[in-house]
Amino acid sequence: MTKQIYTFAEGNMNMRELLGGKGANLAEMTNLGIPVPHGFTITTAACHDFQHQHVLSQGLQAELATALSTLAATTGKRFDDPVAPLLVSVRSGAPISMPGMMDTILNIGLNDTTVDTLAELTQNPRFAYDSYRRLLAMFGNVVYGIPEQRFDDILTTVKQAQGYESDLDLTTADLQEIVTQFKGLYHDTDAGVFPQSPKAQLEAAITAVFASWDNHRARVYRAQNHIADTLGTAVNVCEMVFGNAGCDSGTGVAFTRDPATGAHALFGEYLMNAQGEDVVSGVRTPQPVAALQESLPAVYDQLVAIANKLETHYRDMQDLEFTIEHGHLFLLQARAGKRTTAAALQIACDQVDEGLITRDEALMRLDPEALSDMLHPEFDPTILAAATPLATGLPASPGAAAGQVYFTAQAAKEAADAGKKVILVRQDTSPEDIDGMIASAAIVTARGGMTSHAAVVARGMGATAVVGVQALSVKDDQATIGDHQLQAGDWLSVDGASGHLYLGELPLVATGVQNSLTTFLNWAKDRATMAVYANADTPKDLQRALEFGADGVGLTRTEHMFFQPERLIEMRRMILADTPQARQAPLAALEKMQEDDFYHIYKLAGTKSVTIRLLDPPLHEFLPHDDREIQAVAKQLGMTRTDLTARVAALKEVNPMLGHRGDRLAVTFPEIYQMQVRALMHAVVRLDHEGLTVTPHIMIPLTNTEAEMVAMRDLVQKVVTTIAAGNRLNVHAEIGTMVETPRACVTASAIAHGADFFSFGTNDLTQLTFAYSRDDVASFLPAYRQQGLIKADPFQHIDQAGVGALMQLAIAGGRQTKPELPIGVCGEVGGDPQSVAFFNTLGVNYVSCSPYRVPVARLAAAQAAITANAAITA
Amino acid sequence: MTKQIYTFAEGNMNMRELLGGKGANLAEMTNLGIPVPHGFTITTAACHDFQHQHVLSQGLQAELATALSTLAATTGKRFDDPVAPLLVSVRSGAPISMPGMMDTILNIGLNDTTVDTLAELTQNPRFAYDSYRRLLAMFGNVVYGIPEQRFDDILTTVKQAQGYESDLDLTTADLQEIVTQFKGLYHDTDAGVFPQSPKAQLEAAITAVFASWDNHRARVYRAQNHIADTLGTAVNVCEMVFGNAGCDSGTGVAFTRDPATGAHALFGEYLMNAQGEDVVSGVRTPQPVAALQESLPAVYDQLVAIANKLETHYRDMQDLEFTIEHGHLFLLQARAGKRTTAAALQIACDQVDEGLITRDEALMRLDPEALSDMLHPEFDPTILAAATPLATGLPASPGAAAGQVYFTAQAAKEAADAGKKVILVRQDTSPEDIDGMIASAAIVTARGGMTSHAAVVARGMGATAVVGVQALSVKDDQATIGDHQLQAGDWLSVDGASGHLYLGELPLVATGVQNSLTTFLNWAKDRATMAVYANADTPKDLQRALEFGADGVGLTRTEHMFFQPERLIEMRRMILADTPQARQAPLAALEKMQEDDFYHIYKLAGTKSVTIRLLDPPLHEFLPHDDREIQAVAKQLGMTRTDLTARVAALKEVNPMLGHRGDRLAVTFPEIYQMQVRALMHAVVRLDHEGLTVTPHIMIPLTNTEAEMVAMRDLVQKVVTTIAAGNRLNVHAEIGTMVETPRACVTASAIAHGADFFSFGTNDLTQLTFAYSRDDVASFLPAYRQQGLIKADPFQHIDQAGVGALMQLAIAGGRQTKPELPIGVCGEVGGDPQSVAFFNTLGVNYVSCSPYRVPVARLAAAQAAITANAAITA
Repeated sequence: MTKQIYTFAEGNMNMRELLGGKGANLAEMTNLGIPVPHGFTITTAACHDFQHQHVLSQGLQAELATALSTLAATTGKRFDDPVAPLLVSVRSGAPISMPGMMDTILNIGLNDTTVDTLAELTQNPRFAYDSYRRLLAMFGNVVYGIPEQRFDDILTTVKQAQGYESDLDLTTADLQEIVTQFKGLYHDTDAGVFPQSPKAQLEAAITAVFASWDNHRARVYRAQNHIADTLGTAVNVCEMVFGNAGCDSGTGVAFTRDPATGAHALFGEYLMNAQGEDVVSGVRTPQPVAALQESLPAVYDQLVAIANKLETHYRDMQDLEFTIEHGHLFLLQARAGKRTTAAALQIACDQVDEGLITRDEALMRLDPEALSDMLHPEFDPTILAAATPLATGLPASPGAAAGQVYFTAQAAKEAADAGKKVILVRQDTSPEDIDGMIASAAIVTARGGMTSHAAVVARGMGATAVVGVQALSVKDDQATIGDHQLQAGDWLSVDGASGHLYLGELPLVATGVQNSLTTFLNWAKDRATMAVYANADTPKDLQRALEFGADGVGLTRTEHMFFQPERLIEMRRMILADTPQARQAPLAALEKMQEDDFYHIYKLAGTKSVTIRLLDPPLHEFLPHDDREIQAVAKQLGMTRTDLTARVAALKEVNPMLGHRGDRLAVTFPEIYQMQVRALMHAVVRLDHEGLTVTPHIMIPLTNTEAEMVAMRDLVQKVVTTIAAGNRLNVHAEIGTMVETPRACVTASAIAHGADFFSFGTNDLTQLTFAYSRDDVASFLPAYRQQGLIKADPFQHIDQAGVGALMQLAIAGGRQTKPELPIGVCGEVGGDPQSVAFFNTLGVNYVSCSPYRVPVARLAAAQAAITANAAITA
Repeated sequence: MTKQIYTFAEGNMNMRELLGGKGANLAEMTNLGIPVPHGFTITTAACHDFQHQHVLSQGLQAELATALSTLAATTGKRFDDPVAPLLVSVRSGAPISMPGMMDTILNIGLNDTTVDTLAELTQNPRFAYDSYRRLLAMFGNVVYGIPEQRFDDILTTVKQAQGYESDLDLTTADLQEIVTQFKGLYHDTDAGVFPQSPKAQLEAAITAVFASWDNHRARVYRAQNHIADTLGTAVNVCEMVFGNAGCDSGTGVAFTRDPATGAHALFGEYLMNAQGEDVVSGVRTPQPVAALQESLPAVYDQLVAIANKLETHYRDMQDLEFTIEHGHLFLLQARAGKRTTAAALQIACDQVDEGLITRDEALMRLDPEALSDMLHPEFDPTILAAATPLATGLPASPGAAAGQVYFTAQAAKEAADAGKKVILVRQDTSPEDIDGMIASAAIVTARGGMTSHAAVVARGMGATAVVGVQALSVKDDQATIGDHQLQAGDWLSVDGASGHLYLGELPLVATGVQNSLTTFLNWAKDRATMAVYANADTPKDLQRALEFGADGVGLTRTEHMFFQPERLIEMRRMILADTPQARQAPLAALEKMQEDDFYHIYKLAGTKSVTIRLLDPPLHEFLPHDDREIQAVAKQLGMTRTDLTARVAALKEVNPMLGHRGDRLAVTFPEIYQMQVRALMHAVVRLDHEGLTVTPHIMIPLTNTEAEMVAMRDLVQKVVTTIAAGNRLNVHAEIGTMVETPRACVTASAIAHGADFFSFGTNDLTQLTFAYSRDDVASFLPAYRQQGLIKADPFQHIDQAGVGALMQLAIAGGRQTKPELPIGVCGEVGGDPQSVAFFNTLGVNYVSCSPYRVPVARLAAAQAAITANAAITA
């Protein structure tokens, strides 16, 4: 028979799985010589056993008798002892903390007899009956399922009848009356009577705690937090110590550091003459733990010493529960404390400074995803807690913003120009909306998923966005959210972290990049083997990326440069030209503008590398679509509406994602890429004259074959060589390719002959690998996720088995041809921590993501390196 | 120094690459003791040498002198010899036959002196001067590029002046006059003078033949026939024998079997008192070779004996050129004869029966692609019976075609490029017309016989041809047939089987399968390791597939069943239903119809397996799109137009190919697949009652993950089990999946856990692998092909390096999980021979293609098996 009960002295901190977190820590503290009430832990194995048999086994009952004997020997107390009656608490304690999800019963051992013994022993009948009524309420609720409310109602009735304000006003007589009434409640229910036998109480309590593993709220919590249902809970049986034993007693919780800021000082609260539930319930207002220094200085000093000892021992910030009984301090629990991201960061940095942990340990302490919270403003949490969301969508880009709503890009831009704070609310967005999006503090769309146009652009800009709001419908100049009408100019608050929308203007609190973050990210940079680049299309993007420590730019999408109004008209002129000749004038106009773009970006980047991707999207995207727009543009271009409508229709494609785009544009219209490379090279020449030597990285999109790669390379190189020679410039251009089609992946060894670098376009590669159009997945992907047919949205987290396998083939192929081939990832998932970790295992050289994700990716890269290193040295 | 000249006695048939086909065969015949004029071959290596140096090397000139000495020793003749002057022919001869594409010059050695010696020797001055004028014309044209037409004009002028009808009417004096005028032509051009030195003539002729390797028509022919430009041509120098030496002389061509039907009898044509060019040019109408039996019976018997000897020796039907000089037979050429597909088939079958070749050899003799020619439509016989031919010519190449007439190769090509069906109508054709002939569905000539240029080329291409239409006269941009005027663009119907021409466009019908084809395909079936299935959506498709010998049905697309009007309305009702309840009625209506479809298909298939693919396309495809249609359908369905427009818009997708389709439909609307499987199972029950036990094969489209596969399998199996149980039927369903996304390929080992079979959907897989939308590639794929950036249209021939690599991964993965997993291909390329050969190497179990392609795929599969076997035993 496996041992099912361990005394605290028998366990240690490494036995979490068997003894639960609480039991392992109580054992560890016992062995550290820290004052902990005596007791023992019933193992999770016993819980598994219970789950099969639904009763406590004979074996467990026998061990329980032995454990109680041992406890009697240690404490001198026994159940029902007329002189020294034993009272115990029964608490759950799972291997992974599930705070408040399972049950606890205190004061087991009290009955109609021992309550009076306790009164006599403590010379405090009020305390004895207060303890008894607590037992009756907890036991009735936990064991028999009598609603807490019914016990509370009795308490309230008595207090009201006596005109009391606080529980502390209750007299012994009142509590005796309450005990009688509480016992009466048992008669009114199926329960019948409260068991007077302490042993029966204990067994019923243990049974109830084991059973509580499977209660509804515990199951929901586990599902949410990805905790396995198979773990089970341990049960800790512990001699009672009483914080409510009088004015020299109390109970409290403390953190070894401030869980909100990370400040290094004991932080917490306590209540004198109270039990733990009084602190948690918020019925009485507790005092800060520092106040103990005055009321019980010796206890305070002891608590500080224990806190320091435990933090040093566990090498992490601790969350402690303590009770003071007649001036004696007892620790009831110690565990790693939950903390805000800011605190986590501060604590990790401080603990490194203090020599408590290594940099690697510090880097592993933070959740990379949480880092992004620190970079965006958020709504005041106290006000948010009381607010009711109007609707909820997908949290597409984090941050929070309140502003006035507008329904067209133009209206949004005009309002922003007029100094208003603007929320752009659209059915969905398209590249034409770019001005309005830039002008807006937040973007809200009725349609689209996490990788829709609105979401991608917003993340790139660091703007808050909520997309796919099912309840929203936008038409012309107004919108409805459910039953609510929204007019232009109405105030709306948008929470990009939760996806909630609120009517009106909620107040914001600011966050900023702190010194500790900079330090921390520098450690991450030193530790990571992968570099972290940013996707930046404008100097403004790049500025932000550099502030966040980007190592360079992995992707500059040149098409975004063409959506500004004065460029769009030239772009349209170019697209609609009938002959290469007619294409010359608008190309020349665009070239001048692109040259300036490139000049400013490279100048800002300085010695950091910047990769320019040549034009990628279908030309159709640049053309007007609805009749009104077509009319306006036709007038602008001096075409008839009929002609323009026909040209727009002719360029329309059935599946634009699989159509005439990427380098296919350059195969049919080489002059476009030639123009772009000319513009780039002229910028390089200008910078050279200013003393900055630039090695441009030029990236070809959508390459499928070696021949295509070589042809594009030749096209680009010819322009580079011509302009370099014409300016007596000794410049070398790196010419590489996006790897974003499955064909490029499986023929990578051939394509690598023509490529100086690879960069995975994971968005397109995912679309092609799954046949998922990211504009269209909303109609079925939610059903797939609901039915468990796909683990995660592959546009948010790289699909390792499918897309990842193709990437692996591509990397192996590329490096077979060129062992040192630089390989990056510039899709959306370049900023997703679990994807970054995967890319690290693939041997990718860098990831590139939106500026705001750079710190996240950086930390993820460092953690990946540490994990890889651990795997190697293990 | 490598030997650059081989006498015929020194070579043999295995030296094709070095001596060219003609040279190797002349050598082989020489060694077989067959009468061949004496001579030697200058190697292709010398040609390569020439291509680099552009002159005949010193070494070659020295070898040439030696070879002429040897020839003198053998024949007793020398250049310029006053008693026995040597005359030779100079002919090209490439390793792979390129009939008529390169140049030939006869009668080299004649000059102003030797012409008289020849006249004296032969006692036939007319013959001598006729030979001389031929030399002058050929030499002038080939060496100096003087247009043939200018020589023809002189000849015609003299004939007209004398009132002659035929060349044979020309007298010695006429020919002497013509010789003088021909020599005058040289003076009018850059050429200056005709060289009197035979050695100079010979060297110029050799140079010209080498150079002709690179002429335009040769290059076009090689490109069309995938012949490498690097092969080069050999040059054969051969003592002249004269078919025009008198009435006991002649020249002809013969096939050892009928090249149109394959009938086993000597077949051919000859002209008495003529040189070879007279036969080929079609200027005089030749006699059938059988006529020789009367005129020169001994020669005829000798020719038949030689023909049999050569066919037995070469084990294939031979194309012979012969000349009779004063009753002596000489073979000038023997090579494998070109033939129609029908003839090729008949000959191969006969030769197997005769024990001449093995079945494997017979199977390897036919081009699978050509087999489809035999299955091509012919004119509707009922209409044909009532139609009156406008004219009749020789049925030179079988098949039937209707199209618009054009009178020049260029006009024909332009019309074909513009998408027209073209009939090329010419006085006669020449190698320069090759572009236009390739572009045409049929070729009609006024002149020439069954072995004229037009006839030979048309048969090689599998194009319909009628030649020698006496009633036809073509001039510039119009033609007359009898009294009828034919303008460019007029419609003409050409029957290659009968030689009839009809005005207008006659309707075509499919041809049946002939006995020899059935035999042949049975051999192929026995030999192939891959099965050949058909894609068939209707009983009519299936009927045709079974006639063509399909082993089963690899793909029944259920969606095609829903496009019939009475079904479409129910389909639309189903799609537009708001709730699963509202979907019930239309689903029930559709179920009844589908049940009948499945019943008839399975009944027809009998014991052959039929794979049903569940609904695949986006639902949007079934909805109306333009306003008028929407209005009509709204009325039909009792909806408002606004509502229907909105629903249609809501279902519209940005990239429907990557959208809500395939089994995604069943994840969101399981009732659709449930209905389909119910319908199928009810059909199975009906057939079981009729005594036919069916194992339905049910195929899930677009599967991406194992979970998805298992969920779909469960959905299908549940319906199968329920209906089987309800009908006390012991039925087993095979449930498999399309493999058509790259993700399915790379995760095939997982998906195979839930699949009983795989079937590659190469169309979608190609679209996804390349990011090529089939509907949109027209805007760029032609440019890719033109610029050589892609080898072939991957929708026509499987892309082995890309799509093929993914297929290989999928097969390896699938068979890792289930070693015996049946795997098929059901995309378009399942009927493409080179793709089929590739699939055979991958270990695919079957291909499935359109019914008409079944014989093609069958032969390709057999050839692949033979080739694989050869590779193994080699």
